[in-house]
Amino acid sequence: MQEISTKPYFLRALYEWCTDNGYTPHLAVRVDSQTQVPRQFVRDNQIVLNISFDATSQLKMGNEMIEFNARFSGRAHRIMVPVANVLAIYARENGEGMKFPVEFNDNGDVVEPRDSACDEPSSADGAEANPQPERAKTKSSGKSHLKVIK
Amino acid sequence: MQEISTKPYFLRALYEWCTDNGYTPHLAVRVDSQTQVPRQFVRDNQIVLNISFDATSQLKMGNEMIEFNARFSGRAHRIMVPVANVLAIYARENGEGMKFPVEFNDNGDVVEPRDSACDEPSSADGAEANPQPERAKTKSSGKSHLKVIK
Repeated sequence: MQEISTKPYFLRALYEWCTDNGYTPHLAVRVDSQTQVPRQFVRDNQIVLNISFDATSQLKMGNEMIEFNARFSGRAHRIMVPVANVLAIYARENGEGMKFPVEFNDNGDVVEPRDSACDEPSSADGAEANPQPERAKTKSSGKSHLKVIK
Repeated sequence: MQEISTKPYFLRALYEWCTDNGYTPHLAVRVDSQTQVPRQFVRDNQIVLNISFDATSQLKMGNEMIEFNARFSGRAHRIMVPVANVLAIYARENGEGMKFPVEFNDNGDVVEPRDSACDEPSSADGAEANPQPERAKTKSSGKSHLKVIK
């Protein structure tokens, strides 16, 4: 069995945390050929999506894909975002959340992490090259398997 | 409304991640007057608890308290651990997981973080002074609100 990444678990956890605290969860996404989003809101190959209960319907946060319906400028859209394309999830109100390194190839398409369960603390310093989501209020640390949370 | 910490959400997320991947979730805990654990397994004020489905019954991972029944050397125990006392959660098989800074006072009792939603990236460099759980295979980063996950 191939190991499932921790990423979708953290995304769901922070979605719940935002919701329970009355915050508005926002998703910063790297847009490529695998994402289905309204292109007119894309800037620098990124889009920020409000995924709160009020702003979406039929939200599904799976291990591979995040899907929901939402209205943009009054028009309904079906949104599909691979988990691999998510740059960050955070509360709009205070910017608290988590960001993720996302690598992409020369075509601008996101490359899946090789193996998120990899034992060596090696392959990812992608953090440094990673675009910062709006309102992300932190310097990124180096890669580590165990993360310190206050 | 006082903000709920992200910590219990991350603990539940990593418990699920471990379980879905067939790993054995372990909890490293700072023992103090608020923890109810079998004292004979405590070393340096810490205990490591197997909280897998197979090793526990009636596991409840709340926002304030983690509770379950488990057998130690054949004897049943009721275990109660405040979320504030959790030093780390990780998979026994590969050490992957997350650790948390825990501060304690002169009596050895764990001090609740002042405000986990605090905006300034200030108050916690507790990470450095923090005991490392067994098998934790990482250097800790400085405190940051957004964390980079590979």
